[in-house]
Amino acid sequence: MPLEAIKEQERLLEEFRKVRSFSLKLCETLETEDFVVQPTMDVSPLKWHLAHTTWFFETFLLTPYVKGYKLHNKDYPLLFNSYYVAAGERWIRSERGMLSRPTVNEILNYRVYVDEQVEKYLETQELSNRENYILEVGLNHEQQHQELFLYDIKYILGHNPLFPPFTDKLQNRDHLSGNQGWLGVEEGVYQVGYDGDGFCYDNEKGVHKVYLENAEIGDRLVTNREYLEFIKDGGYSAHQYWLSEGWDWVNKNDIKAPLYWINENGKWHNYTLYGLQEVDPELPVSHVSFYEADAFAQWKGFRLPTEFEWEIATRKYGNKKEGNFVDSLRFKESVTDDHGFLGNLWEWTSSPYRPYPNFKAEDGALGEYNGKFMINQMVLRGGSYGTSANHIRPTYRNFFHPHLRWMFSGIRLARSKNQ
Amino acid sequence: MPLEAIKEQERLLEEFRKVRSFSLKLCETLETEDFVVQPTMDVSPLKWHLAHTTWFFETFLLTPYVKGYKLHNKDYPLLFNSYYVAAGERWIRSERGMLSRPTVNEILNYRVYVDEQVEKYLETQELSNRENYILEVGLNHEQQHQELFLYDIKYILGHNPLFPPFTDKLQNRDHLSGNQGWLGVEEGVYQVGYDGDGFCYDNEKGVHKVYLENAEIGDRLVTNREYLEFIKDGGYSAHQYWLSEGWDWVNKNDIKAPLYWINENGKWHNYTLYGLQEVDPELPVSHVSFYEADAFAQWKGFRLPTEFEWEIATRKYGNKKEGNFVDSLRFKESVTDDHGFLGNLWEWTSSPYRPYPNFKAEDGALGEYNGKFMINQMVLRGGSYGTSANHIRPTYRNFFHPHLRWMFSGIRLARSKNQ
Amino acid sequence: MPLEAIKEQERLLEEFRKVRSFSLKLCETLETEDFVVQPTMDVSPLKWHLAHTTWFFETFLLTPYVKGYKLHNKDYPLLFNSYYVAAGERWIRSERGMLSRPTVNEILNYRVYVDEQVEKYLETQELSNRENYILEVGLNHEQQHQELFLYDIKYILGHNPLFPPFTDKLQNRDHLSGNQGWLGVEEGVYQVGYDGDGFCYDNEKGVHKVYLENAEIGDRLVTNREYLEFIKDGGYSAHQYWLSEGWDWVNKNDIKAPLYWINENGKWHNYTLYGLQEVDPELPVSHVSFYEADAFAQWKGFRLPTEFEWEIATRKYGNKKEGNFVDSLRFKESVTDDHGFLGNLWEWTSSPYRPYPNFKAEDGALGEYNGKFMINQMVLRGGSYGTSANHIRPTYRNFFHPHLRWMFSGIRLARSKNQ
Amino acid sequence: MPLEAIKEQERLLEEFRKVRSFSLKLCETLETEDFVVQPTMDVSPLKWHLAHTTWFFETFLLTPYVKGYKLHNKDYPLLFNSYYVAAGERWIRSERGMLSRPTVNEILNYRVYVDEQVEKYLETQELSNRENYILEVGLNHEQQHQELFLYDIKYILGHNPLFPPFTDKLQNRDHLSGNQGWLGVEEGVYQVGYDGDGFCYDNEKGVHKVYLENAEIGDRLVTNREYLEFIKDGGYSAHQYWLSEGWDWVNKNDIKAPLYWINENGKWHNYTLYGLQEVDPELPVSHVSFYEADAFAQWKGFRLPTEFEWEIATRKYGNKKEGNFVDSLRFKESVTDDHGFLGNLWEWTSSPYRPYPNFKAEDGALGEYNGKFMINQMVLRGGSYGTSANHIRPTYRNFFHPHLRWMFSGIRLARSKNQ
Repeated sequence: MPLEAIKEQERLLEEFRKVRSFSLKLCETLETEDFVVQPTMDVSPLKWHLAHTTWFFETFLLTPYVKGYKLHNKDYPLLFNSYYVAAGERWIRSERGMLSRPTVNEILNYRVYVDEQVEKYLETQELSNRENYILEVGLNHEQQHQELFLYDIKYILGHNPLFPPFTDKLQNRDHLSGNQGWLGVEEGVYQVGYDGDGFCYDNEKGVHKVYLENAEIGDRLVTNREYLEFIKDGGYSAHQYWLSEGWDWVNKNDIKAPLYWINENGKWHNYTLYGLQEVDPELPVSHVSFYEADAFAQWKGFRLPTEFEWEIATRKYGNKKEGNFVDSLRFKESVTDDHGFLGNLWEWTSSPYRPYPNFKAEDGALGEYNGKFMINQMVLRGGSYGTSANHIRPTYRNFFHPHLRWMFSGIRLARSKNQ
Repeated sequence: MPLEAIKEQERLLEEFRKVRSFSLKLCETLETEDFVVQPTMDVSPLKWHLAHTTWFFETFLLTPYVKGYKLHNKDYPLLFNSYYVAAGERWIRSERGMLSRPTVNEILNYRVYVDEQVEKYLETQELSNRENYILEVGLNHEQQHQELFLYDIKYILGHNPLFPPFTDKLQNRDHLSGNQGWLGVEEGVYQVGYDGDGFCYDNEKGVHKVYLENAEIGDRLVTNREYLEFIKDGGYSAHQYWLSEGWDWVNKNDIKAPLYWINENGKWHNYTLYGLQEVDPELPVSHVSFYEADAFAQWKGFRLPTEFEWEIATRKYGNKKEGNFVDSLRFKESVTDDHGFLGNLWEWTSSPYRPYPNFKAEDGALGEYNGKFMINQMVLRGGSYGTSANHIRPTYRNFFHPHLRWMFSGIRLARSKNQ
Repeated sequence: MPLEAIKEQERLLEEFRKVRSFSLKLCETLETEDFVVQPTMDVSPLKWHLAHTTWFFETFLLTPYVKGYKLHNKDYPLLFNSYYVAAGERWIRSERGMLSRPTVNEILNYRVYVDEQVEKYLETQELSNRENYILEVGLNHEQQHQELFLYDIKYILGHNPLFPPFTDKLQNRDHLSGNQGWLGVEEGVYQVGYDGDGFCYDNEKGVHKVYLENAEIGDRLVTNREYLEFIKDGGYSAHQYWLSEGWDWVNKNDIKAPLYWINENGKWHNYTLYGLQEVDPELPVSHVSFYEADAFAQWKGFRLPTEFEWEIATRKYGNKKEGNFVDSLRFKESVTDDHGFLGNLWEWTSSPYRPYPNFKAEDGALGEYNGKFMINQMVLRGGSYGTSANHIRPTYRNFFHPHLRWMFSGIRLARSKNQ
Repeated sequence: MPLEAIKEQERLLEEFRKVRSFSLKLCETLETEDFVVQPTMDVSPLKWHLAHTTWFFETFLLTPYVKGYKLHNKDYPLLFNSYYVAAGERWIRSERGMLSRPTVNEILNYRVYVDEQVEKYLETQELSNRENYILEVGLNHEQQHQELFLYDIKYILGHNPLFPPFTDKLQNRDHLSGNQGWLGVEEGVYQVGYDGDGFCYDNEKGVHKVYLENAEIGDRLVTNREYLEFIKDGGYSAHQYWLSEGWDWVNKNDIKAPLYWINENGKWHNYTLYGLQEVDPELPVSHVSFYEADAFAQWKGFRLPTEFEWEIATRKYGNKKEGNFVDSLRFKESVTDDHGFLGNLWEWTSSPYRPYPNFKAEDGALGEYNGKFMINQMVLRGGSYGTSANHIRPTYRNFFHPHLRWMFSGIRLARSKNQ
């Protein structure tokens, strides 16, 4: 085993330990009961996240590559497969919250068992490129679930009439928002997509050229102050700003404000991971659906950026990783002193999530990771305060259905040159 | 305070302690996670039962009668009211399982707080008749929820693919089933309903006369062996035995056997509170809906008894309280050596749940206990292995919708004299 | 063929012609388009009624008994069977309204074809008792569908914002309502059910004894004036008068008045078969559900009669057939000068629809006529202005689910002696 | 009024008469009943189409521009507005089929009334540019509804178990399909969108540049023969070819073939406007959803073209208008001797329906025509055998949700140069 390979494997082992232990870090302030419930289909029980990320390593690394590997529990593959049809039967997603067993402790034991096996394997065997890649996918996968873990615990606690805080370690940052300015994106043919050497997902590959017209993109996120003006101006009851399906969504669900906003005696509060607080007008608006982001932009006379305008602008103005990542344990949207393209809030783009030219999904179950979701969803870019710093890239494509808003989403405006 | 009153209050205090502690007795084998989930709307989280029964004493006894009583938590009335419209707003039933807080420990503290207040009140104040009555209702109410607690934990564990047992303390009884015989009920005018001095629910009052024709009632419950013959004979696919809505229910839900029955390699198993076991042919069939009970009777050429045939027969043949009550901690249907009218399984009758002549619901919130449910439900009689011995009476009317079967229900046949 | 049989067959032939032509009589004022739509599942397209009643004679009389009978159209049995599982596959009920073909004219041709075959058979063959019986069932069946035809066209036109009238031939009757009095029903054992020689349905058979306590029954139906007081007193928003499922029904459907009532500028109107009119306070209230009837009675401090109290009272006070039957072509509820037990509006009773002791459904498909619906429905008695006079009897048991109200239903109060 | 304007107005008048009378042409073979039903929400009653297109002229031209114009019927705006929120209240779409009135004849009278008013106005007044434009929109709008009329009558008759034909005037064309070849689209920057002088919709405007990579596009549509191979190869049960939401759609709806395909004794038939026929292997496959089109392309190892690849290829190879348009009254997909880009079947592209850069919806109600639907739908290009020849353009963007297939849709393949 060449020295370089040894070093790479040591790096991977260290990263494995770091990522795996960070999942447990997020559990520290919680009660056993918090790990069990599933208040809505998009939310998974927290203990399911802890088990599913473990199942991922067991299923895609240990079972196929480690000789004589013995499953921790023969029923866990059924329980902790999410959506990989090629990986066998799955417990139905909407019923994850009906299972009280295995207990949290049993799942923590499952983690210990799988961790020991993976670590032993990394310490004693030279990994093939394929195994290396699977391990990288597994680590990125767990980082994604750490972020989902935060979305879900916020939903669970934020929909409980007792509004228990997730954490009390709030550290404020200075407010620097001010008026929004514009950053220029010049007309021309650009190359987009990932062409580096590090890890990336299959949906970023297929480097290709796009033609962009002259445009400008906001130099910061839209704030609660700006969004409140939209509310006060009757934005939620003026059909002309809304896509038709957005308008139906607003009316059917009686939407009047972002998720977690509650009006008490004429004053807007919102649930944060620190508990229920008054809405801070200088913070970026968060927990908005695509429908709301698009309607706000319409009302303002602008539009959302395309995912490629965003990517080009980020490469030019914002690729600094000075964002507000989960590593800081701040757990809250913020006002950053750069333009805040990376970290803080996922930014809705106007681009539907579709395959790049030459997109080729992987074979087998891992091929189900991204490609099969490329319909009826919109691309979000940039990462959030729930994202790990080493997880994000300017080419990273996140995606959600346009009505969803339990994730940490925000708004950045754009305009065409003649708009 | 006269001596008799003192004694009565001492009895009540002792009963209060006994009933309250029995709720905790039922929790001993469970994990924290088991107290949180709500796998279907009819099931409530176990921690909700523990809190709701406590709320009952707080709301109907402590708050109105104890001077200066301070609520344990101002939000608990919202969370733990079940269906008493007159007692204020309620958290929606179908979403009880989305709440991780208050935790089990917080609810146990709530129980301690309320228990101390009630006990102190009983030890120091002379209760009015009304207060006495409310306390009796509260204790009977808690006994009902102890039974629901068992239905619900059975549902929770029995729908988990790991099939964890609730308890391992099985003590078998001898099988005595043999062939079913018939017990006669003679034609004539009978008085029905409760006319004793002890506690009873309002739905048993309104003593009145009914005319019964000559009939016979089975001298034991229908067994799994008999029910298996129905299954083998194609009972679940022969429309002629079924009520139309029952037939729709069978087809829509793809029903092929009682609840908790699983066919593995051609052999029927059923989940019991001891775990998954082979179906015992000599035990009474349980977990059947009214639709199934009625179809079975049709197939057999007989019918179900009316609630009054059952009441008269029980007074004559079965009023012995030798049944299989929850006090024994056996947690399983059984074969009893008397005719088994009381204790063991609730017996579906052919009678819809409607008010007796002269039925008068109580005023106020307690009036919502029974009367408002008198539509679209069927009467069951006799109590089950989840019922406390001192809770049941020959006049006791239980009721469930005809499609439900997660409760401990069974079948007793009847026939008209010329059938 | 004996003279008596000839006469009986001549009578049947005449009755056949009368009933069949009356179905067409009801079509006279309608447009082709009115025969096609199905605005809600409980309503069937009018052309379906015309075809289904024809299919009934074809399926149960012509096909089995007439040698060499050739189906009019091989696909019609699929299209026009309603719910007779034993009679073969059926087009799904909720999708009857998606079929534009066969056209109304094609169905009228179908009627001519079957009528000719039946008439020829009656003119040339001596019918067995069984055939006689089937013919009688078929005629009563068609009379029931004539009544449903009126319910359905009223629903179709009354839910069209143009509110087209069904007919303009209104003849008013004098108003005689006055104050309601009470008619006594004495305590005792009574025989109930049909024991005459004529035709009756299987659900009326099983003559048996019941014990009635002293009670009184209203001497007329409840009027709109009385019902308006209930509305004004907040009856629809006071939970204490309502069964729990009724209360859910009121809130889920935002019910504030009987079906067809519309409040325009503070004044109540209701759609009648003559078009939209002001509510007449002296007419009986109609188009109420069981939930509303029961809540009204609760509010008033009384109750609904049982089906047996009603039957005994009708035999004693009201068996005069002076009612407001469909034969008169008045098409509207009225105030009758007797007590109005028969004809006018179907009267909700407090009795669930269940089999009489010794009830035995017929074998074969006709056995599905009544028995399989004996769950979750309530008994109504007395017939309506949509009922043929020779179709009704004091023992006649009609039945509907408690939330339904598109049929011609009304309220008569009762009270126990000590109420 | 200058001569040129007179000529333009004469042309418009003639076009108005032509388009309006063509709507009636499509009704000739139908029965009154066919105009009334709405078998599923996406289908509208035929009489609704006839009225809605008339309402369009009344609402957007006559009411605002013709002095003293009197509505034909004050209730029609409520009944015949489709989705224009800015134009007032609307009857709910899913309940269009519950209205038997106004009758077909009344609606034909409405057409006559409005036609006379429009014609008189055109004959006597000089239209402003705005009025001219509205008239053009109205005519194009009616052509779209003529096409929907055909989709809907096909659905109505094709879901009737009698399978009545719409027409019997079938004229076959020779089959020329043969093997599919490829047409090249070269890499480069292209201008897309409409920049001519004639009428186009707002969604085609915003001419802009796009960068295309080297690609090839099929020289004809995919045939039934090719699609049958997909079916035989198990395409409908192999998850790997399907988008996740497509896979759910297949399984939830038990999809096994295109819409209108019925397997009788192992042989595939499909309902056509000529009745039920054997599937012709040489005709283009039609009535497929986007999910099916995409899965077929995946299975074949290719992909669907983007809307811009399609637009550039059509300009280069297929802009001949020799297609199979509705003007020919053939009413069936066909094999055309050119490459068939225009007319025949709408071709699914891989492009989500989103606004072009600089897209600007019109002000007012007409601004709701296209823009508000730009989410969760896919672009189809090229027109079908239900499209009028003068209605289509290479830049024309049609759009449907990816699960829909009652429209006349087909598949054309594409591949990247290195695929």
